[in-house]
Amino acid sequence: MLPDQPFLRIPGPTPIPPSVQRAVNQPMIGHRDQETKDLLHTIKPKLKPVFGTEQDVLILAGSGTAGLETAVVNAVHPGDEVLVIVTGAFGSRFVQICQAYQIETHRFDVEWGEAVKPEAIEAYLKQHPEIKAVFATFCETSTGVLNPVKELARVVHQQTDALFIVDGVSCVGGVAVEMDDWDIDILITGSQKAMMLPAGLTFLAVSERAWEVVETNDRPSFYFDLTKYRKQLESGATPFTPALSLLFGLKQVLELFEEEGLETVFARHKLMKNMTRTAFQALDIPLLTCDEAASPTVTAIKPEDFDPEALRRVLKRDFDMTIAGGQQHLKGRIFRIGHMGYCSPADMLQTISMIEYALHKIGQPVELGCGTRAAQKTMLSGGS
Amino acid sequence: MLPDQPFLRIPGPTPIPPSVQRAVNQPMIGHRDQETKDLLHTIKPKLKPVFGTEQDVLILAGSGTAGLETAVVNAVHPGDEVLVIVTGAFGSRFVQICQAYQIETHRFDVEWGEAVKPEAIEAYLKQHPEIKAVFATFCETSTGVLNPVKELARVVHQQTDALFIVDGVSCVGGVAVEMDDWDIDILITGSQKAMMLPAGLTFLAVSERAWEVVETNDRPSFYFDLTKYRKQLESGATPFTPALSLLFGLKQVLELFEEEGLETVFARHKLMKNMTRTAFQALDIPLLTCDEAASPTVTAIKPEDFDPEALRRVLKRDFDMTIAGGQQHLKGRIFRIGHMGYCSPADMLQTISMIEYALHKIGQPVELGCGTRAAQKTMLSGGS
Repeated sequence: MLPDQPFLRIPGPTPIPPSVQRAVNQPMIGHRDQETKDLLHTIKPKLKPVFGTEQDVLILAGSGTAGLETAVVNAVHPGDEVLVIVTGAFGSRFVQICQAYQIETHRFDVEWGEAVKPEAIEAYLKQHPEIKAVFATFCETSTGVLNPVKELARVVHQQTDALFIVDGVSCVGGVAVEMDDWDIDILITGSQKAMMLPAGLTFLAVSERAWEVVETNDRPSFYFDLTKYRKQLESGATPFTPALSLLFGLKQVLELFEEEGLETVFARHKLMKNMTRTAFQALDIPLLTCDEAASPTVTAIKPEDFDPEALRRVLKRDFDMTIAGGQQHLKGRIFRIGHMGYCSPADMLQTISMIEYALHKIGQPVELGCGTRAAQKTMLSGGS
Repeated sequence: MLPDQPFLRIPGPTPIPPSVQRAVNQPMIGHRDQETKDLLHTIKPKLKPVFGTEQDVLILAGSGTAGLETAVVNAVHPGDEVLVIVTGAFGSRFVQICQAYQIETHRFDVEWGEAVKPEAIEAYLKQHPEIKAVFATFCETSTGVLNPVKELARVVHQQTDALFIVDGVSCVGGVAVEMDDWDIDILITGSQKAMMLPAGLTFLAVSERAWEVVETNDRPSFYFDLTKYRKQLESGATPFTPALSLLFGLKQVLELFEEEGLETVFARHKLMKNMTRTAFQALDIPLLTCDEAASPTVTAIKPEDFDPEALRRVLKRDFDMTIAGGQQHLKGRIFRIGHMGYCSPADMLQTISMIEYALHKIGQPVELGCGTRAAQKTMLSGGS
């Protein structure tokens, strides 16, 4: 094995582009100096199109989970009932956060690997008009499902005056999202997935409707108080010490987005999804999710006749490649390939050809090259 | 196209491993301080096995050509006649250097794409016993030929008392070489090929036989005087300002070599050669060189029914991938793929699958995936 060259194909943290790595490595500056204000003023307008919003996108030092907790703490008043749509492990996380705050939580479970049906939520909300906030996962990382958040926002707002809050951690930056047009109230993401940064930043954008709730909330947190972040950002500042090296990197990420063009970024992710799916279809290895529910950022594969962990071990041993296994009850039953952020169609050709090799190594008599060929054909046909 | 991710598959300069890049980025130190002496003392023993020699390997700041010129200037006394074996563009370079110093130069030309036959040199030297130095190219970068320097060394020393001087620029670090056992008198390489560094360093090792010639030589250069480098290196110093950042990187390269094991490094290069060759054979696209003459570090392909430049343009446009074209009379007739240094078998799977894609883009109806499959099979069979 060639040292020094790990292949990271998990659904985040993702590889860092060299120019972003260089940006992250810049010397420290004073966090209250004008340079920091300039940095935040440069970042502010460039983040908005990534979220599809005119609202300021607030930046906290913290992981994606900190962002989810921030949303809960700010959007839910004491005594409010909430609904959490659970399509996998990260839906469950919203439930756990709500429970940590003794929030009365309705839980709507969907079979892992399937997307939630908006009409089911519509029906549920009809029966529970008391619900004040609905939490959903945009891309469910544990299954590779992309939930229909646009339609969910519509039914939530038609049925109730509840806020609609979306965990976009494993897809924002890699899939088109129009927070304002779709009427999402809080959209959250993290830095370490399609945003091509190391972990350590979480981002939240908040609608006018949600701000009304947030501003009147006697929230049980000091650090997670979004009103502080909003107020400080107006003058290019942060309420607490910002993670400056990650902000240096973020500026460069946003410049890369502008250089490639966001539409092209999103099309690239769709293409990588389609290449991955057609490859495994050609190899006759079942996908966990149907085409309609599949996320452009991560694909889960559910083999019938081999152990996903054996495949992962060979990839690690022979190539220093890491793909993800399953979580919770899918542990040992699926494997997941991340194709988001700093990842190209050429990387997917490589990933697929490496997996074909590893399948042979574990004794699976797949036709060598046939998944690669399917992915090449998908590329040649423009990705559809 | 994903910005920030060029694919460099030319036969040097080659990509730099991240840990080497980090090493290169270290802060400057005083070039006469103890830290520099320590650095050179650390490097010195680790370079010897790369050259297969017990001699000190001398390091000059300069490109590979500076190294070739240094060899000529030190090894050839005024009035000496020399023989240059020319199997491609870099053999010609030795001729040009000799001519710049008005050295009487015999030129032995071999058809580009073929290796020189030792018995032909044996016959030539029988007729020209006056020759005092024989220059050969180990890997001829312009054609992907690996010349049989071990056998050449044998016939040179059997026939004459001439020095045998070898340009190893595009292979040392990627192919096994036993300078002492094979009886090579001067072996030269550069930093930017299988040595995984940026260009800027050239390395020379000199046999005892050659030192006798060098030490009595009233050479026409101040900077290229090898006796100065030998004398200074004894105390961990250099006669002129060393290129410190590249030496920081070199230390890390040598640690990577140790980590992987030199035998494994060489086996990896052989495997990449075999993967590349079997892939193009499967695609029915002719190789320039025969199996016996093929270098583990670079492969030249000579298509009959498409323009190599069209292929290169598509690879550049669609992937930001650079492969090399032909040089001199092979310009527009061949393309060359570098597979040396920081390059893995997985990179070759990717390169081949990208080329299959690009061949379709230029209208060549190759069977998609079939070159990739051939390369995968070569890997699975252990590389033979």
